[in-house]
Amino acid sequence: MNIQMIDAAQTRLKGHVRKTPLLSSPFLDEIAGRRLYVKPECLQHTGSFKFRGAWAALSALTPETRKRGVIAFSSGNHAQGVAYAAQQHGVPAVIIMPSNAPQLKIDNTRALGAEVVLYDRETENREEIGDTLAQERGLTLIRPYDEPQVIAGQGTVGLEIAAQAARQGLETADVLVCCGGGGLTSGIALALEARAPGLRTRPAEPEGFDDVRRALETGRIQPNPTSLGSVCDAILTPAPGKITFPIMQRLCGPGVVVTDAECLHAMALAFLRLKIVIEPGGAAALAGALFHGDQLQGDAVIAVATGGNVDPQMFQDALTAFL
Amino acid sequence: MNIQMIDAAQTRLKGHVRKTPLLSSPFLDEIAGRRLYVKPECLQHTGSFKFRGAWAALSALTPETRKRGVIAFSSGNHAQGVAYAAQQHGVPAVIIMPSNAPQLKIDNTRALGAEVVLYDRETENREEIGDTLAQERGLTLIRPYDEPQVIAGQGTVGLEIAAQAARQGLETADVLVCCGGGGLTSGIALALEARAPGLRTRPAEPEGFDDVRRALETGRIQPNPTSLGSVCDAILTPAPGKITFPIMQRLCGPGVVVTDAECLHAMALAFLRLKIVIEPGGAAALAGALFHGDQLQGDAVIAVATGGNVDPQMFQDALTAFL
Repeated sequence: MNIQMIDAAQTRLKGHVRKTPLLSSPFLDEIAGRRLYVKPECLQHTGSFKFRGAWAALSALTPETRKRGVIAFSSGNHAQGVAYAAQQHGVPAVIIMPSNAPQLKIDNTRALGAEVVLYDRETENREEIGDTLAQERGLTLIRPYDEPQVIAGQGTVGLEIAAQAARQGLETADVLVCCGGGGLTSGIALALEARAPGLRTRPAEPEGFDDVRRALETGRIQPNPTSLGSVCDAILTPAPGKITFPIMQRLCGPGVVVTDAECLHAMALAFLRLKIVIEPGGAAALAGALFHGDQLQGDAVIAVATGGNVDPQMFQDALTAFL
Repeated sequence: MNIQMIDAAQTRLKGHVRKTPLLSSPFLDEIAGRRLYVKPECLQHTGSFKFRGAWAALSALTPETRKRGVIAFSSGNHAQGVAYAAQQHGVPAVIIMPSNAPQLKIDNTRALGAEVVLYDRETENREEIGDTLAQERGLTLIRPYDEPQVIAGQGTVGLEIAAQAARQGLETADVLVCCGGGGLTSGIALALEARAPGLRTRPAEPEGFDDVRRALETGRIQPNPTSLGSVCDAILTPAPGKITFPIMQRLCGPGVVVTDAECLHAMALAFLRLKIVIEPGGAAALAGALFHGDQLQGDAVIAVATGGNVDPQMFQDALTAFL
């Protein structure tokens, strides 16, 4: 992994991936106690940054390999990103999803052109199903984060932040990133190391699922005890990746931990002051910037709002609770 | 009014006004029956395009005049745009608002640094109050739409659309614009005439408040019979302006009329598919693009989502009704 791979990904993404703006509001600045900038990747194609990594991975394959198609395991944002990137490349995508996934997610993934293969979480092994299909059809597996080209694609968020921060005259700031397996966090960190070394990348995670914070603090990967119990479904990965962790260890931290209620509150404030829709897991960084200013340094902070694929009822509950 | 004034406004706005992206979703394309692009001016500072016109007008004043301050009549998006643009210029702003305006709007306008002067709609005349204050303090009145520099500022939306459409390879398309007094519509039309003559500007208005559509059709301004009875509060202006109407008559039309329910439905779809928050009056153009495709020409359409300052309860009602 290096900055050249991220630059190359940016070249391949140009014209296909949306360059998201940097948003701000004087009302949020006041709550945060400093200038607060939000990078709204919820506005990215398919509603999350995952489309960047999917495009970067697909476009890095040889034409022959790509033509046979790709496969991914996901019921969430990675599924939609891979499905749509494959459709735009005109190649098949198979997405393996649990049969009890929400019908809307299954329908959306199909509508983006993917073949959805359902498996029973209780009785079937998704890796076996995936391996068999991949071998039979020559499909390439696209991992959600522990995959160099995916990290390179997510790193283009960091290149955009570096350029946008420079235009704002921002030389030093904490950059908070909602963190699951660390693909986006490590990609951004590599980009900022090269292009904006005064910006420090810090993972934001929900309480009880702060595996990255703990791993950075102790130097050892200790998986979260459970994967259930937070509304931040998009970032409840059990542990950082084998590729992403060493990068984060070298460049990132310390981690910031937020509560579910703070994420929902941040969603409501993003609705009111920025006019964007973010999901709970996509609000962790903004929640950190708004409500944990005592842990931040400097007079400015950048928060990446990583996705917006939220259930309408949960969104309404957040507005009711906090506005 | 000419394209040179819009170009000059763009130069003055650079670095102060947000350049909004062009959003799209394959799910919305399918509903619209053609490629649909949305220009989300809800992401502009203060949540609507009005900040552009306010900045253009303020920055066009001589330093001596500007220093004395500005005044505006509005309880809505124009108020917030003028207040924040004045605050950013470091000059005083007085906003005249009805005393029964929602407390949140009064608070927001004050928080953006303006002095809010309340008047009683039943017993007082706002023009008299405004004239007296303006004379006493040497304030400059910033009209919401019938004002050349305001139109020039709003026209910068058209310059951005022209450049963005060219990058998409879009040479011909209808451009739907939520239309009140016509400041934005006429500004965009002038910009497109000069820079993207294949793009046709068409006003979108709520049913019963289609004064611009009727004026364009008959050649005569006939004010709406009432200003009450639609959820699209941002665009319920009684009649097109003296400056804006001749421009629209030369360049725009025919008008598209949408129902309140279609606006609320468009808001819900913008939440689900674009992850943006738009207000009812800011959804009229998108509603026209989604639900009145039979009145449009060509295989692509652009809709300007003009603002996002919506009451949380109304937003929730839209989600409940249509998702």
